Amino acid sequence: MTPPGASGRTPSGAAGQGQAGADRPGPAGPGRQPWRAGDSFLSMWRELAPIGRHPGSGGYRRHAWTAADLDCRAWFRAQAEARGLAYETDRNGNQWAWLGDPLAGDAVVTGSHLDSVPDGGAFDGPLGVVSSFAALDELRRRGAEFTRPLAVTNFGDEEGARFGLACVGSRLAAGQLTVADAHRLRDGDGTTLPAAMEAAGYDPAAIGPDPERLARIGAFVELHVEQGRALDLTGDPVGIASAIWPHGRWRFDFRGEANHAGTTRLVDRRDPMLTYAETVLAARREAELTGALATFGKIAVEPNGVNAIPSLVRGWLDSRAADQATLDALVTGVERAAREYAERAGIDLDVVRESFTPVVAFEHALRDEIAKILERAGDRRGAAAGRPGQSGRDTGRPVPVLGTGAGHDAGILSASVPTAMLFVRNPTGISHSPAEHAAEDDCTAGVEALADVLEGLACS
Amino acid sequence: MTPPGASGRTPSGAAGQGQAGADRPGPAGPGRQPWRAGDSFLSMWRELAPIGRHPGSGGYRRHAWTAADLDCRAWFRAQAEARGLAYETDRNGNQWAWLGDPLAGDAVVTGSHLDSVPDGGAFDGPLGVVSSFAALDELRRRGAEFTRPLAVTNFGDEEGARFGLACVGSRLAAGQLTVADAHRLRDGDGTTLPAAMEAAGYDPAAIGPDPERLARIGAFVELHVEQGRALDLTGDPVGIASAIWPHGRWRFDFRGEANHAGTTRLVDRRDPMLTYAETVLAARREAELTGALATFGKIAVEPNGVNAIPSLVRGWLDSRAADQATLDALVTGVERAAREYAERAGIDLDVVRESFTPVVAFEHALRDEIAKILERAGDRRGAAAGRPGQSGRDTGRPVPVLGTGAGHDAGILSASVPTAMLFVRNPTGISHSPAEHAAEDDCTAGVEALADVLEGLACS
Repeated sequence: MTPPGASGRTPSGAAGQGQAGADRPGPAGPGRQPWRAGDSFLSMWRELAPIGRHPGSGGYRRHAWTAADLDCRAWFRAQAEARGLAYETDRNGNQWAWLGDPLAGDAVVTGSHLDSVPDGGAFDGPLGVVSSFAALDELRRRGAEFTRPLAVTNFGDEEGARFGLACVGSRLAAGQLTVADAHRLRDGDGTTLPAAMEAAGYDPAAIGPDPERLARIGAFVELHVEQGRALDLTGDPVGIASAIWPHGRWRFDFRGEANHAGTTRLVDRRDPMLTYAETVLAARREAELTGALATFGKIAVEPNGVNAIPSLVRGWLDSRAADQATLDALVTGVERAAREYAERAGIDLDVVRESFTPVVAFEHALRDEIAKILERAGDRRGAAAGRPGQSGRDTGRPVPVLGTGAGHDAGILSASVPTAMLFVRNPTGISHSPAEHAAEDDCTAGVEALADVLEGLACS
Repeated sequence: MTPPGASGRTPSGAAGQGQAGADRPGPAGPGRQPWRAGDSFLSMWRELAPIGRHPGSGGYRRHAWTAADLDCRAWFRAQAEARGLAYETDRNGNQWAWLGDPLAGDAVVTGSHLDSVPDGGAFDGPLGVVSSFAALDELRRRGAEFTRPLAVTNFGDEEGARFGLACVGSRLAAGQLTVADAHRLRDGDGTTLPAAMEAAGYDPAAIGPDPERLARIGAFVELHVEQGRALDLTGDPVGIASAIWPHGRWRFDFRGEANHAGTTRLVDRRDPMLTYAETVLAARREAELTGALATFGKIAVEPNGVNAIPSLVRGWLDSRAADQATLDALVTGVERAAREYAERAGIDLDVVRESFTPVVAFEHALRDEIAKILERAGDRRGAAAGRPGQSGRDTGRPVPVLGTGAGHDAGILSASVPTAMLFVRNPTGISHSPAEHAAEDDCTAGVEALADVLEGLACS
């Protein structure tokens, strides 16, 4: 099994979008043929692969509330219904597939998101959702008996590719994004979030905090492809998250004076592109000095004409660090440098913090419980087969616990709900790119680890 | 009279677009009330002012074959017809308004263009077209008798804002752009030039070289707002062009590796934005060293996401110098620096020269004749009024002759036709910006100078 996002080739034998293909397993039960976790995973993966994939770049463009996103949502619903799970959409457009009583409380919830960054990879998000359904299939194969309600989720608009704010679905549910602010979100064409939801057939009047729903969750576990190379360096297929670094987005508006590039003397220019360029390089230097991350990956220029000195260069700084003090030092350093350059060049500079997420330390009790579950499962499996365990462990070493610079719905929910994350090895560390990849064996190990965790938490 | 582009306010009392307003002069003739050059100019200026002006930026967005451009074209045709001139559109979509027999040969042609850069000023282009009609009105007021055919022109798509190539109308006519290459031009939405022309009601099958038409032109004179401060520094309202600097556009494609901005270690990155930034600063240094001009004013980034290290940063270098050797040294220096940066950072770099125009030295004979005409006219007017001449001269000093870094249709046509240019003072030098400006008195001086030149060339 080579997940199709890895090789760049068009997936062959992919079933139709959102349809129950012949190669997709139905719900397990007495008398049914057992299947391996990998088969269930691969079948779903093949169905999902073509949706929203750009034929030119090979990357995914599954932006919130677009046609590709709606196709992903239809796929999710079909998966739920094919397994006999109770499907529902919550007030903020997040999707839920329930095994057991949604209202009973103390539920174990697992899932991730299906939307993508522009030209994103196949794994960031979908790996967690597909692995959640596959883990449920695996538990049914094992004949597990559930003592707590279980749900699989797809949180809406995690990447923020369209409206500029990440984790909109979980932020709204957790009350970390006000309804008024959500109404002000606009995409590049000027379409508001409510208008986009309405056009997609969802009722935007319903959006808002959802504390009753969150109160019924006893544990939320999100499996995600690692977006760095820590597991590759330690040689482990699966790891557990310790914390999400504090991170944010800052918009730098450099305003100069539009003028003719072919006639304006250098001394008469107020060219904001020069100050932007100096600031980009300053951000890299500050990141190196502080051992943190700073990136200018998005830019908007006015008038953006070949023969016009720009009037405005708008650059977005993404910055992250292991702790708040380091992040503060980094961003302060970049802004100080930018202001010095701007003043020298007669450029007006505005810096606006567009979003910010403080450090998220996942709950120690749940994290430790999960580590113990994985250890026991690995030992059991290793003993049964006369070989070392496969669920995130090699030879008795503890499952690695690692921090990450990437934000996740799990990070948002951690303020309201006991939350944990599993990471699956990414051999290149590349993410947010069509080249994003995880190996077949590691995906299977991820499904088994997630099944072990869910079994440990939700089954007798 | 304050041309509305100057102050940023909405023009009041503007007549409807392309309509013969009550304040627009009709053709002059026996028994008609005479008017001043300024009145005729202002009336036309007011009509043209609202077309394609963006209410937010105050800048003009008159891009080739868009609705705003078609409104400008309708205005041109209405001006021709109101003056009893024979109107025609040539095979490349350039507009002509003829006084006398178009087929007689040795015609004197004057004009410029009506399209604009993105958020351009009111003067770049339209000043020449409006002044041409106003000069014709002034000659009729003077009762001039024409011995050569005279035409006013509007060349299409001079700025290249939509399809990326400047002077498309004149290049096609002069055979400096092949039909095959013209067919390959696409705008940002993927619309081809032929499709855009067809949508605007023009027949794209007709485009191509027009040597017979050019052979019937004895002299082409283009009046244009200066796009620098040379006339402001010498204190002259009007000048004559000596040459257009060699200039071109080079596209720099920096290709790295898309990745997650929040999780990719600095050492694992291949971030093309950093190499772009270094190259922008190198271009400025090379321009300072060579005493020439280099500008990165346009950029395209993929995927252009806040939390994504770019896979591609595409930057366009606009570069110009007084002579070819200096320009070569400048561009070679920028490219060499960019290649060094790119190699160090693991970035792939492609540099493509997208367009190039060698130095254009306007014909000495025509330029000298124009200088003499202006000198005589100034002396005559000064003697009549007991004051110094106003047509580009102060007190007996010769009319200044100056080079420019800006390309013009006159530069394209100079390879086929005796060509000259007049510049009107620009007090700030600002161009390609809503702040572009020329004073009322200088615009009037420009009309009078152009009328003097046309009278000297085309009248007995």
